[in-house]
Amino acid sequence: MKEPEEKLDWKSRLHEIIYEADTKMGRAFDIILLVVILLSIALVMLESIADLNQAYYMEFYIAEWIITGVFTIEYVLRIITIKQPKRYIFSFYGIVDLLSTLPSYIAIVSGGHNMLFAVRALRLLRIFRILKITRYIGESDKLIRALKNSRPKILVFLFAVVIISVIMGSVMFLVEGPENGFTSIPVAIYWCIVTLTTVGFGDIHPVTPLGQFIASFIMIMGYGIIAVPTGIVSAEFTKNKTIPTNTQACPFCNETKHLDGAEFCHNCGNKMNGK
Amino acid sequence: MKEPEEKLDWKSRLHEIIYEADTKMGRAFDIILLVVILLSIALVMLESIADLNQAYYMEFYIAEWIITGVFTIEYVLRIITIKQPKRYIFSFYGIVDLLSTLPSYIAIVSGGHNMLFAVRALRLLRIFRILKITRYIGESDKLIRALKNSRPKILVFLFAVVIISVIMGSVMFLVEGPENGFTSIPVAIYWCIVTLTTVGFGDIHPVTPLGQFIASFIMIMGYGIIAVPTGIVSAEFTKNKTIPTNTQACPFCNETKHLDGAEFCHNCGNKMNGK
Amino acid sequence: MKEPEEKLDWKSRLHEIIYEADTKMGRAFDIILLVVILLSIALVMLESIADLNQAYYMEFYIAEWIITGVFTIEYVLRIITIKQPKRYIFSFYGIVDLLSTLPSYIAIVSGGHNMLFAVRALRLLRIFRILKITRYIGESDKLIRALKNSRPKILVFLFAVVIISVIMGSVMFLVEGPENGFTSIPVAIYWCIVTLTTVGFGDIHPVTPLGQFIASFIMIMGYGIIAVPTGIVSAEFTKNKTIPTNTQACPFCNETKHLDGAEFCHNCGNKMNGK
Amino acid sequence: MKEPEEKLDWKSRLHEIIYEADTKMGRAFDIILLVVILLSIALVMLESIADLNQAYYMEFYIAEWIITGVFTIEYVLRIITIKQPKRYIFSFYGIVDLLSTLPSYIAIVSGGHNMLFAVRALRLLRIFRILKITRYIGESDKLIRALKNSRPKILVFLFAVVIISVIMGSVMFLVEGPENGFTSIPVAIYWCIVTLTTVGFGDIHPVTPLGQFIASFIMIMGYGIIAVPTGIVSAEFTKNKTIPTNTQACPFCNETKHLDGAEFCHNCGNKMNGK
Repeated sequence: MKEPEEKLDWKSRLHEIIYEADTKMGRAFDIILLVVILLSIALVMLESIADLNQAYYMEFYIAEWIITGVFTIEYVLRIITIKQPKRYIFSFYGIVDLLSTLPSYIAIVSGGHNMLFAVRALRLLRIFRILKITRYIGESDKLIRALKNSRPKILVFLFAVVIISVIMGSVMFLVEGPENGFTSIPVAIYWCIVTLTTVGFGDIHPVTPLGQFIASFIMIMGYGIIAVPTGIVSAEFTKNKTIPTNTQACPFCNETKHLDGAEFCHNCGNKMNGK
Repeated sequence: MKEPEEKLDWKSRLHEIIYEADTKMGRAFDIILLVVILLSIALVMLESIADLNQAYYMEFYIAEWIITGVFTIEYVLRIITIKQPKRYIFSFYGIVDLLSTLPSYIAIVSGGHNMLFAVRALRLLRIFRILKITRYIGESDKLIRALKNSRPKILVFLFAVVIISVIMGSVMFLVEGPENGFTSIPVAIYWCIVTLTTVGFGDIHPVTPLGQFIASFIMIMGYGIIAVPTGIVSAEFTKNKTIPTNTQACPFCNETKHLDGAEFCHNCGNKMNGK
Repeated sequence: MKEPEEKLDWKSRLHEIIYEADTKMGRAFDIILLVVILLSIALVMLESIADLNQAYYMEFYIAEWIITGVFTIEYVLRIITIKQPKRYIFSFYGIVDLLSTLPSYIAIVSGGHNMLFAVRALRLLRIFRILKITRYIGESDKLIRALKNSRPKILVFLFAVVIISVIMGSVMFLVEGPENGFTSIPVAIYWCIVTLTTVGFGDIHPVTPLGQFIASFIMIMGYGIIAVPTGIVSAEFTKNKTIPTNTQACPFCNETKHLDGAEFCHNCGNKMNGK
Repeated sequence: MKEPEEKLDWKSRLHEIIYEADTKMGRAFDIILLVVILLSIALVMLESIADLNQAYYMEFYIAEWIITGVFTIEYVLRIITIKQPKRYIFSFYGIVDLLSTLPSYIAIVSGGHNMLFAVRALRLLRIFRILKITRYIGESDKLIRALKNSRPKILVFLFAVVIISVIMGSVMFLVEGPENGFTSIPVAIYWCIVTLTTVGFGDIHPVTPLGQFIASFIMIMGYGIIAVPTGIVSAEFTKNKTIPTNTQACPFCNETKHLDGAEFCHNCGNKMNGK
């Protein structure tokens, strides 16, 4: 609205639209991009269904090229409008953007279809761009902060889960053996993780009485330790909630965060009631 | 009990019985309705068992028409007794009530049996009316409030779960492929949700070592993030508990946060009742 | 230790041994009883294994009669030593004790073996007597209290789970149908509970794309609502911990439970510092 | 760095390197040992895969002896450098160290391959040494403390889970019977634990309507009681957080519970640093 902004050249204005989300045009660009990304993901999903791919091969082929075209234009515009193109090109999103447009062009030269498909799935990484947009929506910030605070504790916990899995997996391999599906220690560890996390596919399961007894022990242990990460995150969320309850501000120095019932300001020493 | 209520015409009295639950008759009506709804649900369940349906076809047919009759009468009464019938007819419960009586009549004209069955299942939506009644019982309000407060955080979390499922599902489709049951990306995403939520049917499961390794990673991740919604709701419930319940204020110094049953102000020492 | 206790007749002394656990003899009796109950449970378990039952039929038969004898003697002693035998006989433990000794005697008359086995399993209810003993150990009281406080909320929650299962079960029956294992609505509800609780046996699982989509929705919902009972109990435990933090007592009236920072007693109005 | 330390003989210096982790050399020794332990675990895992073991038998054999050599040297050094060798030899780690080196030597004499393998898996117990190292990393201490505080409550809870499993397992054995996979009471108890902990392998599952109804009941119960250990640990973590961290006391009025960074006492208004 201010005068200096009026004088912006087309590059700066395009930059504002493409990289920012606080103008009407910028928001519209983000939403259109979001729709195209979702469409491209839906396309990859539908193409993976063998029957549909055979029936609508041509339609998928055309849609694929339209989306590739849109992504190419977006990529070029992002490079043109930014002042330091290298910072964008070698950033996470820059590489993802390149990887989600390049495969289609390579496919023409090489002619390989399966490889094309595999690399095109990289386009899914663009979902993170959607996440970037949703960050503006609101609550996710609190969630991410609480998770970040809990991260060291949760990592130690997950490390403990892995060690328990390695030990109990080896024990189960010795007890059940290859004849009951526990073909090797890595497979037994896989089974142990399946069990500890209470997923329980059932593709491998103990058959001998001793194996079933140890499995029962592992399951009850898993049931008991599921409480740990939950407790960590609960405490983190509870802490966030209970901190800012006192809204008093000192009439002299404007300091806040006073304890309930404080009669003097802990910052300047004057009376809280201003007398 | 007051005189003006004595002069209520039969419409108003019926309205009180049908729509409200604070008179003896109103409560009785609600309980009878509850029993009929439960019977109708039991009937739909029993009819779905092929053996029973063949053996007791006639009995089910008669019971079906009795219940349809009761629901029809109830529907007509609700329209007659209310002053603005349109408000009821186009409300959620109005539509549910219509949909749970209409199918039986349509079935005579069309003669279709299977379709009749499908639409009759809509009658199950009447369960919500039971919920409406149980709301008076007590604790559910607190539950619903805590869930409502946690809703934005839980939605962001569930959105994250869906995105993780889409990415990991695509990875598993590429790693395992159609020959191991991951026939398409949507199926692989379905498997990923089954695994992340620790349900683990086992209808599809990884077979290759790399697939089992990635599956282990997904499971441990699922185990770690199950803590997030739990933490959110725990914090919500904990917060509910710690809000001060005593709203008394000292008549001399206006100090609040008194303990229940406090007779003297803990701030100025005067009597709480002001004498 | 006091004189009146010395004069106790043998009945009272036996009563003290059998019904109480605060004397050396009483504790010994409880431990012996605990061992016999555990042995009788182990015996029922071992007898249920077909191979073992054939091989050690005679040994099991003798052990069975010894345990029945011990239980009979205990039952008779409990009736003799108590002043109001009827209060014991018709109490929960009285009936359990009778039911765990009677079947063996009935078996001789009737000669039925399978029925005998079924009723003998009632002996397992004696485990509750062990629970009664463990109550003295310690922590269980807090657990039971917290659970009791949370009960109304958890019941409302479980009721909601049942209703969701009924509705989603009916939907899945219509979508998947008997040809995919959802043979009737009750079976579909069973499947829905298996899925919502994240157990996931895999004996029944959705086959159609729409069914798998709805199942994914049910699973994510189940994952989201598992937070509710956890939050309820967490809040209950947290509340228990955070209540009694202030240990001040008024020097005039000895009232406790003062707020942190209270300068005057909220009970008698005197200064908390006693001046 | 101080003079007395300079005079340390080679034994003391080696002791510092081997047993401690606060010098540069000691830390390096710990990291090298960590790598060798991880390599030895990886070796045991790879050997358990039948195909790999046949293809690389010789390479595995040589690697096995190198690792055994390293562990032997470490074991001898630990005995030499400590002043009271018996305290180390009969400690937990001393026995683990012996058990992870001895089997390889025994294998030469006995020539048994399978037995060798079984005992070599004991080497996995060395993982605990890694845990000992990670303890210095940080957060694990808090986790272990919170778990220790919760232990009595969690044990009582797990005991309750076992009792529910025994009772419900017996009921399911009577209802479903050997013809539906519930071959004996211990197997039925195993199934019950699989179900209560929401693992749900699906190797055994109820077939009769009554069995499915009871199973539904068990699952919903399991869903409800999973909240208990979670609540216990959550409360434990929350408690840890809310303990006052500021231990300052006002030099004038001795008021405590000051906020971090408070410069004036909130009770008497004097300067916190006493000037």
